[in-house]
Amino acid sequence: MIPRRELLFQLLEVMRLEDLLGRPAFNGHDQREATDIIDVAYSLAEREFLSCAALLDREEPRIEDGRVVMPEATSQALRAYGEASFGALAFSEQQGGLGLPFVLAQGCSAVFASANVSLLSYAMLTQGAARLIAEFGTEPQRRRYLVPMLAGQWFGTMCLSESHAGSSLADLRTAAQPRADGRYSIKGEKMWISGGEHELTENIVHLVLARIPGGPPGVKGVSLFIVPRRLVGSSGEITDDNGVGLIGLNHKMGWRGHVNTALSFGATGECIGELVGLEHHGLPYMFQMMNEARIAVGLCAASIACAGYRYSLDYARERRQGRAVGDRDPLAPQIPIILHADVRRMLIAQKALAEGALSLTLYCARLVDDIATATSDESRERLQLLLDLLTPIAKSWPAEFALEANKLAMQVLGGAGYTRDHPVERWYRDNRLNLIHEGTHGIHALDLLGRKVARQGGRALRVFAAKVEATVKQGLELGELEGECRALASGMRGLAMTTRRLVSSIDAGDPERGLANATLYLDAFGHIAVAWRWLAQACVARRVLLADRSAGEAERAYYEGKIATCRYFFRYELPTIAPKLTLLARLDDLTLRFRDEAF
Amino acid sequence: MIPRRELLFQLLEVMRLEDLLGRPAFNGHDQREATDIIDVAYSLAEREFLSCAALLDREEPRIEDGRVVMPEATSQALRAYGEASFGALAFSEQQGGLGLPFVLAQGCSAVFASANVSLLSYAMLTQGAARLIAEFGTEPQRRRYLVPMLAGQWFGTMCLSESHAGSSLADLRTAAQPRADGRYSIKGEKMWISGGEHELTENIVHLVLARIPGGPPGVKGVSLFIVPRRLVGSSGEITDDNGVGLIGLNHKMGWRGHVNTALSFGATGECIGELVGLEHHGLPYMFQMMNEARIAVGLCAASIACAGYRYSLDYARERRQGRAVGDRDPLAPQIPIILHADVRRMLIAQKALAEGALSLTLYCARLVDDIATATSDESRERLQLLLDLLTPIAKSWPAEFALEANKLAMQVLGGAGYTRDHPVERWYRDNRLNLIHEGTHGIHALDLLGRKVARQGGRALRVFAAKVEATVKQGLELGELEGECRALASGMRGLAMTTRRLVSSIDAGDPERGLANATLYLDAFGHIAVAWRWLAQACVARRVLLADRSAGEAERAYYEGKIATCRYFFRYELPTIAPKLTLLARLDDLTLRFRDEAF
Repeated sequence: MIPRRELLFQLLEVMRLEDLLGRPAFNGHDQREATDIIDVAYSLAEREFLSCAALLDREEPRIEDGRVVMPEATSQALRAYGEASFGALAFSEQQGGLGLPFVLAQGCSAVFASANVSLLSYAMLTQGAARLIAEFGTEPQRRRYLVPMLAGQWFGTMCLSESHAGSSLADLRTAAQPRADGRYSIKGEKMWISGGEHELTENIVHLVLARIPGGPPGVKGVSLFIVPRRLVGSSGEITDDNGVGLIGLNHKMGWRGHVNTALSFGATGECIGELVGLEHHGLPYMFQMMNEARIAVGLCAASIACAGYRYSLDYARERRQGRAVGDRDPLAPQIPIILHADVRRMLIAQKALAEGALSLTLYCARLVDDIATATSDESRERLQLLLDLLTPIAKSWPAEFALEANKLAMQVLGGAGYTRDHPVERWYRDNRLNLIHEGTHGIHALDLLGRKVARQGGRALRVFAAKVEATVKQGLELGELEGECRALASGMRGLAMTTRRLVSSIDAGDPERGLANATLYLDAFGHIAVAWRWLAQACVARRVLLADRSAGEAERAYYEGKIATCRYFFRYELPTIAPKLTLLARLDDLTLRFRDEAF
Repeated sequence: MIPRRELLFQLLEVMRLEDLLGRPAFNGHDQREATDIIDVAYSLAEREFLSCAALLDREEPRIEDGRVVMPEATSQALRAYGEASFGALAFSEQQGGLGLPFVLAQGCSAVFASANVSLLSYAMLTQGAARLIAEFGTEPQRRRYLVPMLAGQWFGTMCLSESHAGSSLADLRTAAQPRADGRYSIKGEKMWISGGEHELTENIVHLVLARIPGGPPGVKGVSLFIVPRRLVGSSGEITDDNGVGLIGLNHKMGWRGHVNTALSFGATGECIGELVGLEHHGLPYMFQMMNEARIAVGLCAASIACAGYRYSLDYARERRQGRAVGDRDPLAPQIPIILHADVRRMLIAQKALAEGALSLTLYCARLVDDIATATSDESRERLQLLLDLLTPIAKSWPAEFALEANKLAMQVLGGAGYTRDHPVERWYRDNRLNLIHEGTHGIHALDLLGRKVARQGGRALRVFAAKVEATVKQGLELGELEGECRALASGMRGLAMTTRRLVSSIDAGDPERGLANATLYLDAFGHIAVAWRWLAQACVARRVLLADRSAGEAERAYYEGKIATCRYFFRYELPTIAPKLTLLARLDDLTLRFRDEAF
């Protein structure tokens, strides 16, 4: 699991949770309360989540007599999670939540994800669906659906994809025919629905994208509906089945404790949905929620990488194998493998990738709070631009590079890591999904380069550059980080130049060529963003080391480790962007011109 | 599976199999015969190997009543393989083989590996063990063990690792006590033994590393023994059980059709071994065989990547999703995803990595033949130096980058690729092993930088550089490849300079620092080597395109694809070595100085 010390560093020291809690919106909640909640998260995650992670991977959900069956531990753990109110942390008190910051809720999610991401997914999807209803639903909808969802009694899902329309939501076909009573009759099939069917809760609240006949084609004709698995009366009582059928289960490489389904709507009986908000506005609503889900995906990726790092670190300290380079005495005792340079490199690389990704995703989570508590429209708008810019990166960079960290965790264990005797192989399988779900890597790259950086004449990138510059300035004042500061400033200039070149090619009418290597752009941008988060972490560490000479040895070592890992990132990782930026600036169109017959 | 056209290009056009077959050692075998054998490999691999690949992954070997049980398809497929003599291709006729080139045998292995690598492993291990007996065994040993092994009646294993000694063979403990009859009594336990126990054949010939008491400590006191699972009488008849016990099975993430065991020797009854060759010379013998096994590991990695490339290519041509960038008409039909730039990039990247790795490993396989048929000691020695240098790269670079290709194959399929409905997730799991077995990535990196490049004052690197230079010269003469030629020549100079710097640091008494980033060195060297193989392929293609203007459209497109993929490798892949070489040249020791408490 993610170490408590690390999480507290990120939340309290880097994200300065106390400052945030001081804002009126948080109603006097204080840091002591926050750390108590984190402690409950740790004990609950260890007792209920970690303990069954291997079991849930081994015994994946199956269908028996038309019902989805899974180990009892799933239900027990999720009940405990719900009863401890973790699902309601970041909802406002008037919505039935605890009114705590989103970044704190995400911090707790990191704990649960590092213990058992398959289990946490039920809760995260429910929170996402609940947030949609909270923001865009009517008061009666909130009363009937939101309350039991926040209490953990009902779970929620997001029903977007269809078999022929995964990334291309413009092509959704599921239909919503208006009924006389103002509700809609839903007909269609949905694919890849996580948590789509189970017996964990007495109801499941599906949030379904569908088309009202006669609406505009494409994404502009998509509406959002609440479609409960079982119908709900006006006072919240469950009445009848609602014609949602289970077509089948998807059997995945990892993330196997979480049931993934294909569902039919209206095939097994009439299926009734309630419109959320306005007709044909479903996609913007969904994306508002999806953006938070995307930060959560990045956070899960980072958390799994943190778990792999700690596990392989413990292993490397225990496992003895070989001798120091140059020690040719075969009778000398074998040394712990952490003393071998290549093992150290693999451990530091994991730390750099995992904690860098964690820091970036928590930064984005804190931006959600900053936006919600902004004191001026100007500031809210600026922060929103920054968050929109960083969201595809916060989702995608951790997915790519935290997976790399998990690959290294396995490599540290060698043959043992490739067996199911250790969890590192499971984490490697689990983490692979993060590059695919909630928008693939390539889709987010197009979003970043094709939309986000160009918006308002590139204003978002300037906002980001100003944040980077401020951290560089801090770093220069603190001393000892000059090299890193210069490298980040120079990388940022390179990124800005490359961006201008690409955007002007796109604007000049050659979008295909400008976007051809968008994925490389996303990865390079991510490296800059994570380098910035590492410099920010190093600044915090340096400040403590300068200010508090009485800190204990273990604490000093922790902060020195932060600074050393920052240096590692700048020496080993950041320079990898140079060939990417060079390639991008050339507007290389080799892949576009590659003949179909030549593959 | 690996396309026949691709394999024939590599074997016949790039490796010029016909020239090789013309040498006296190959006794008049001709190219026609070779392609017939390849065709048999394809039909057998498709019928017997590919057809059960998913089944073998699903139903991994298990123990029932003390016996290892696995699907019947395993035995059926391997019987067909043995009966078709694929196990005997590259053994000389006097050894009971067919006397064909090693490179041809490896080409056939590529076909089987791309169909079902778990199955092929039984055969490859047997061939490795057989080669050891062929080279270092006595005539009676060859008669009793080699003959049934080459006929596919008995399988072989390599028993090196023990639980406390995986990478560190100096620490082996298994003991071999001399008996009065000249044989040895073996006692100990071995770990990670592939094919260690099964009912597929009536006997299993274990080749076991063990210590004769009183010998020198470390690797210099290790001897090699033939330890049959069942004892064999002088006329080859099986007599009694030989005290080899099954401790348990290892349950792996992938490669699940191949049984992996922990074995005891001498715990369940006396266990008798026969010494191979001289006492205390076990390790050099084993390594001679291991080197061929290492080329085979790289070849398997490449083959699995080729399979993933073809599968995802077919999928991308069929699957329709989304529209061209800039096409905003949601009523237009969806386009095949191969038309999206990022999907094209992922396909070309796979082709570049997979076929580059294939070309490098087949080059090394051909070097084995060139060494065996060398007409002078000088030439044999020079080629051996080159092969020794390239072996760690041929094993490791494909393992790292073919895995990357398989990751992209999954990404092309998106969510579907993450399910067990398609083989790409299995290939991704299978290929992950190649970074670990037959020596981990890090161990090969130390071998390359700490031993191979420094040997004889760096002569091996000069031999390699001369080969590269010759290909560059060819490329320049053919025209249109000038940019690639210059880039390769410059990359080679950079590699040579970095090597000198690292080797002189090692020689100057700071081996730890010089070797600290050996893995990065290996990866960078691998990129140079594969860039060279791509330039060689492009030269072949260019020569055909220039010479044969009457070639059909499909053929021309194939060769153009080779040239375009070569360009891709030089633009997208080769430049990634620059930051690695820079870091290496700095002799960075950050990972060495990282404090233990700071992790």
